[in-house]
Amino acid sequence: MMRQVMKAGLALVLMGAGVVSADDQVDLDMVTKIREEGFRRSHVMETLQHLTDEIGPRLTGSPAMRLANDWTRDKFTEWGLKDARLEGFEFGPGWTPVRSEIHLTSPRAEQLYGLPIAWHPGTEGKMDGEIVVAPMKSAKDFDKYKGKLKGKIVLVDAVPEQKEPSNKVFTRLDDKALQDEASYNLPSSPQADLDSWIDHVAFGYEREAFLQAEGAVAMVSRSRRPGNLIDASGYQYKQGMLPKLPAVSLAAEDYGMLVRLSEADDKRPVTISLDVAVTYHNEDMKSYSTLADIPGKAKNAEVVMAGAHLDSWRVGDGAVDNGAGTAVVMEAARILKALGVQPKRTIRFALWGGEEQGYYGSQRYVIDHLADRPTNVEGKLKYLTPYEQQFGRFPISFKPGYEKFSVYFNLDNGSGKIRGIYTEGNAKAAAIFGKWFAPFHDLGAETITMNETGGTDHEPFDDIGLPGFQFIQEPLDYGTRTHHTQIDTLENAYEDDLKQAAVIMATFLYEAAMRDERFPRKPMPVMEGDKKDEKAEE
Amino acid sequence: MMRQVMKAGLALVLMGAGVVSADDQVDLDMVTKIREEGFRRSHVMETLQHLTDEIGPRLTGSPAMRLANDWTRDKFTEWGLKDARLEGFEFGPGWTPVRSEIHLTSPRAEQLYGLPIAWHPGTEGKMDGEIVVAPMKSAKDFDKYKGKLKGKIVLVDAVPEQKEPSNKVFTRLDDKALQDEASYNLPSSPQADLDSWIDHVAFGYEREAFLQAEGAVAMVSRSRRPGNLIDASGYQYKQGMLPKLPAVSLAAEDYGMLVRLSEADDKRPVTISLDVAVTYHNEDMKSYSTLADIPGKAKNAEVVMAGAHLDSWRVGDGAVDNGAGTAVVMEAARILKALGVQPKRTIRFALWGGEEQGYYGSQRYVIDHLADRPTNVEGKLKYLTPYEQQFGRFPISFKPGYEKFSVYFNLDNGSGKIRGIYTEGNAKAAAIFGKWFAPFHDLGAETITMNETGGTDHEPFDDIGLPGFQFIQEPLDYGTRTHHTQIDTLENAYEDDLKQAAVIMATFLYEAAMRDERFPRKPMPVMEGDKKDEKAEE
Repeated sequence: MMRQVMKAGLALVLMGAGVVSADDQVDLDMVTKIREEGFRRSHVMETLQHLTDEIGPRLTGSPAMRLANDWTRDKFTEWGLKDARLEGFEFGPGWTPVRSEIHLTSPRAEQLYGLPIAWHPGTEGKMDGEIVVAPMKSAKDFDKYKGKLKGKIVLVDAVPEQKEPSNKVFTRLDDKALQDEASYNLPSSPQADLDSWIDHVAFGYEREAFLQAEGAVAMVSRSRRPGNLIDASGYQYKQGMLPKLPAVSLAAEDYGMLVRLSEADDKRPVTISLDVAVTYHNEDMKSYSTLADIPGKAKNAEVVMAGAHLDSWRVGDGAVDNGAGTAVVMEAARILKALGVQPKRTIRFALWGGEEQGYYGSQRYVIDHLADRPTNVEGKLKYLTPYEQQFGRFPISFKPGYEKFSVYFNLDNGSGKIRGIYTEGNAKAAAIFGKWFAPFHDLGAETITMNETGGTDHEPFDDIGLPGFQFIQEPLDYGTRTHHTQIDTLENAYEDDLKQAAVIMATFLYEAAMRDERFPRKPMPVMEGDKKDEKAEE
Repeated sequence: MMRQVMKAGLALVLMGAGVVSADDQVDLDMVTKIREEGFRRSHVMETLQHLTDEIGPRLTGSPAMRLANDWTRDKFTEWGLKDARLEGFEFGPGWTPVRSEIHLTSPRAEQLYGLPIAWHPGTEGKMDGEIVVAPMKSAKDFDKYKGKLKGKIVLVDAVPEQKEPSNKVFTRLDDKALQDEASYNLPSSPQADLDSWIDHVAFGYEREAFLQAEGAVAMVSRSRRPGNLIDASGYQYKQGMLPKLPAVSLAAEDYGMLVRLSEADDKRPVTISLDVAVTYHNEDMKSYSTLADIPGKAKNAEVVMAGAHLDSWRVGDGAVDNGAGTAVVMEAARILKALGVQPKRTIRFALWGGEEQGYYGSQRYVIDHLADRPTNVEGKLKYLTPYEQQFGRFPISFKPGYEKFSVYFNLDNGSGKIRGIYTEGNAKAAAIFGKWFAPFHDLGAETITMNETGGTDHEPFDDIGLPGFQFIQEPLDYGTRTHHTQIDTLENAYEDDLKQAAVIMATFLYEAAMRDERFPRKPMPVMEGDKKDEKAEE
């Protein structure tokens, strides 16, 4: 799941309540079979273990990601899916950290703990230097530190006020929490959220340029997680805009100690050593998504899809973000093939690349097969992703696949089981999902919310008016500990939850594939303030 | 605080309810002054910051511990205490880790996270070797692995069943929890606990000998803490019994991954590299406690004492275990000197060394000044500490200081404020403490329990029938995250709590020093099954 939930407030014009067709009565024979296969003959943990223990972190563009592409493609083929393939997108160099070692060297000797920030270069041997604490939140802060950073290792974050740690570590949703999920939140203005995200990303590049111009030799950031957990994700990965300064994300506890030492009255210099080696991968500037089909029997078959991102950040093994979603989508494919289903529509499975950097894989799929939009790279938008550069732009030019597309289901919020679904404001979808969840109440899955959710690969579909949905999942410790940290490992993924999710995913795909009619769409979303006449009509 | 609570069940013969003397009415003028000094002009965080940020980890026998001894002695002198001094005890070599780096090298390349276990040697450069998973819980397990460990890096722990993480991270005691503390737990048999502890410690030595005999090249243990927290404390530090094998405590998540990889069907070897450098300190085989006095005005003055251990383990900075207790005891001294108190009894402050290895400093103080006991080093007891070798042995030979000793207060359960006190079954003490806590109910301190507590330096006093007490403190996250881990740092110590504890500690010392009579004692504790006629009478 990407860092930012970007679109939690698109202004939607909701249509009136829809009519559920007779065929939305679930095929209970198929449900029985899917449950049997999914609960008694599951391969989901085997799949997840291979992705995490054997392949490990799968940063977009890295050899490990390519290995995962190939392995998942071959697995789909082995299971009998058709046309298992990689679809590429322009991305940039891959990056793999090789080793890192950090020490406090004065006023005392102590090994510290931190990890290199993605796409930053190594130190080319051991670098020993004095630190300067220079917390900066926007370009306005640069003036304070002009002329003070030459030759220095710069600590760029402020230390927040001490706070007692939270006791909300691990959550399974109770009735009250599910009611809250179901209860509708009126949309807020998405433009402010978008602007603030653009500023945030752009600031990373501006700060890097400032540090370079001032002659700083390295950057140290404070991990946003306490308790020795490191989030070392990075957002500067673009060809031509790659960071030039070595940079590490330091454990919050070590970072705080450095700041306090540097504030000591005696003004002794505080020095640290950084020894970081990384490898860039420039052989192939494309990265890839893996796709495979169970072809539909209908003439000129429409398409239903399930997807999850295969890429991960680099400090953990990407077990819950998003090996879990990947394994569930693959397991749904395996279950349906094991049962020999002959769907009317084509069921397509997509394991996206580049989600963590901004939906590269899913956005490319949408552009190639469904709809393209104008791109704006003016101003700070040049720092952002193709997705963000196209976000909310009109007119839309539709591709042949647009009419044949039915529905997309995404899974990307950790390894927690499915408790319901976000309908993205599509009231007809809500009515249909009410039927489809009926045989799964005993598995805790029944909550349907008209709310939207963001931060992952259903968004490029939803943005062009196609039904794209993300499930409500048990939060577990995804938001509190495992998301983008070193402990995003198999230890923290839950087998029973994954089995449940795979059974529901398989059923939803089957129902969508067999339904008489294409899945109902909602009106094309528009940004608040967009002129209606800028919209293209289908 | 030492790892094991050893004596939570000594069979005590409780005396009848005592009579509180008139002078146990608290000197409220003094309370007012102490609160003013302690809350408005506190130095407690400054002290703790020096101990942790500036000096850092203070492993017994290490140069950093000696630096802390010297600094605390000088600080006591600067504040006007008398006879600030170091008192030594035989210990063994010090040990300081210099650097460590661990990598998975096959089937894939990945930097892992772990830390060297205390007193184990380094690897003398990079060691690359195949792992063998050989979980052993007792010497009975050795047979299974005979002939299989030569040249191997041995993973010695089993991976427990997956468990959802607890939501009890950080606790402040509510009324119910305080009632539970106050409610008396009937004593259990201490002999079984003691025997199991002896077996546990001895097994560490036996396993080391087995691994060496089998030709293993290194040992890897699984950190008992989840979430990338490492407990790398060790119990093999004795001259002549020092471990010979390099050993690291690996993050539970990484450890689990290695075990799973080694269980994979394909039987590929799993190899890791260890690169660990450490230094032993053999210049001085003694280590030290720091002591200082506020001399009593009475002729042949009796002694009241406060203490906390100054030593720490090595992976964190020893902020909550037990820089916190140290800083509070020092602050109590500073407050009393700042107020110019002229106590009747001598108030003695003790900052112990060697607590983490088994009460070395406090036990030595007891032997030198109060009472000595026979030592038993037979069988497995040879692996244990002088404290454990003397525990429960009779006859006791008393020193001149025994009669002049009044009471000892210890603080060693993290940085949480004082909520009450364990009376170690001394009913007269309970009555007195009831009076002494009266002016501190507004600070949350009032719970008095007849229960005993263990695991720290009041035990050597209590064991010889002297009043030695440990306070009930807010648990905070001491037991869940910070105890013996890398995040035992200043970030996780709470200033307001420490101020409160210092105010109460200063008051208790003052009241004990000014009381008409020596603090009431309880009958000499005996182990269950000890013959009464083996006891020496005072």
